[in-house]
Amino acid sequence: MENKLILDGNVVANHVKVQLKGKIAELKLSGVQPCLATILVGDDPSSETYVKMKGNACEKLGIISKRIHLSKDIATEELLKTIAELNEDPAVHGILLQHPVPGHIDERQAFEAIAIEKDVDGVTSLGFGQTAFGFGEYPSCTPAAILEIMDYYKLGADGLHAVVVGRSPILGKPVSALLLNRNATVTTCHSHTRNLPQILQQADIVIAAVGKPNFIKGEWIKEGAIILDAGYNKGNIGDVEYVSCHQKAFAITPVPGGVGPVTISMLLKHTVQAAEKARKKKEDANSQFVTI
Amino acid sequence: MENKLILDGNVVANHVKVQLKGKIAELKLSGVQPCLATILVGDDPSSETYVKMKGNACEKLGIISKRIHLSKDIATEELLKTIAELNEDPAVHGILLQHPVPGHIDERQAFEAIAIEKDVDGVTSLGFGQTAFGFGEYPSCTPAAILEIMDYYKLGADGLHAVVVGRSPILGKPVSALLLNRNATVTTCHSHTRNLPQILQQADIVIAAVGKPNFIKGEWIKEGAIILDAGYNKGNIGDVEYVSCHQKAFAITPVPGGVGPVTISMLLKHTVQAAEKARKKKEDANSQFVTI
Repeated sequence: MENKLILDGNVVANHVKVQLKGKIAELKLSGVQPCLATILVGDDPSSETYVKMKGNACEKLGIISKRIHLSKDIATEELLKTIAELNEDPAVHGILLQHPVPGHIDERQAFEAIAIEKDVDGVTSLGFGQTAFGFGEYPSCTPAAILEIMDYYKLGADGLHAVVVGRSPILGKPVSALLLNRNATVTTCHSHTRNLPQILQQADIVIAAVGKPNFIKGEWIKEGAIILDAGYNKGNIGDVEYVSCHQKAFAITPVPGGVGPVTISMLLKHTVQAAEKARKKKEDANSQFVTI
Repeated sequence: MENKLILDGNVVANHVKVQLKGKIAELKLSGVQPCLATILVGDDPSSETYVKMKGNACEKLGIISKRIHLSKDIATEELLKTIAELNEDPAVHGILLQHPVPGHIDERQAFEAIAIEKDVDGVTSLGFGQTAFGFGEYPSCTPAAILEIMDYYKLGADGLHAVVVGRSPILGKPVSALLLNRNATVTTCHSHTRNLPQILQQADIVIAAVGKPNFIKGEWIKEGAIILDAGYNKGNIGDVEYVSCHQKAFAITPVPGGVGPVTISMLLKHTVQAAEKARKKKEDANSQFVTI
């Protein structure tokens, strides 16, 4: 009972942020101010809160937060125009379009319009394909957070059976792809899965990405499993029934304080990486100019 | 024993080709000659055979086969230049770069250079991402063939457990993605999978994509499973040990005469679809011009 490993997301997030601070300082010394542009469409209160949290996390670390707030009535074309401008703006290194946008807007088209080198939130199909093929730069942030936690706590995946519950484009699908690339055997489950408890019984690694509070029960879990709960439901409740799952697990993330804080730090990390790449590209272009 | 469903790839391929003939005739009436460009680099005999087979299949159906044969010594840049020219050429609707290219060439970079609207062989990471997100036009041809066979024989996947053995970018990964989009629970296995027989015992659908002759044994198969063998090894041998697996299966593809012939017909189908899209685009552009 006492040897449980509690995967503390705040510790991991702080570790990441400390590393980022050094990189941000270097970037600034070389004249580059890393900058994340966030686009919020409409006035959904939780979306407003999320965007504000992300912007504040940027500023706290020294990343410029360029906050764009568009009216809920805009047409898809206007959103595409905003994205195109940000794609072109050399001062912007990352673009985040807060999901969901109002229903009349073609959200997928808007996501796809984000330039791959600024897709730090990992929402484009190109970014997903590159991630699945093993050369993606910025996987979407929650899957990246899950791997960051595993790395921090030195939890390998090679040869283990990972069961991912959920198949969304920003969570279930990319985390399945990332674990597959780490040589896990990966089963992706969802609402049509017939025998979820039996499948979970085989899982060495459980990824909960359903969006249903306390959905995954301890009795479904194999003794000694690693459980990462990416669920975040109203009232700070995860997808995993914590008390019963905790009893079975070798390692488990709490909610809150698990995957959540690391997710935001992945957004910051990707933005800094994008700024570093932009700087390198500029330097390479300059040095080429000199030699000519 | 007698109620086995033998999934006959030749029947499915012929069915597809009959449909395509009508579409090709229509295209030609409207002045469009569907055209697939194939690029062969070097003189590997089996690659030469494959490319020839594909070109001949095109011509037999009335699709123009533009065959480009490059020397084994060319640099990646020359290959990229060839691809760029084909991307620009309005008479070319599909581009196939025969895998593998000689080792000194960056094959991935070459694949990625193929324009998405001409990627009829489904090799780009963008095409894969779009397929995984459910809006891809041309999944890679063997996965597309597997689904085509399932459709022809009215074999559903919804709620079934599909086990895919193999994780290559053109086979295991995309077929996993396609089956997931059809609401199967999907497990992707590979060389690091520890307990393959136990996992296969749970499979309602088995996809063999390993490239090892007779690798999958009948004793591993659940009674009543659907088995699709995408393996194609020397001597016309599949990845599935046919006699023992046939005994257990409800439905099974033979090798040869299973997935193989349908794969080529998917290449033809995608090329025709690409030609139809190109025609539509041209017509839309023309009608726009008229109204102005």
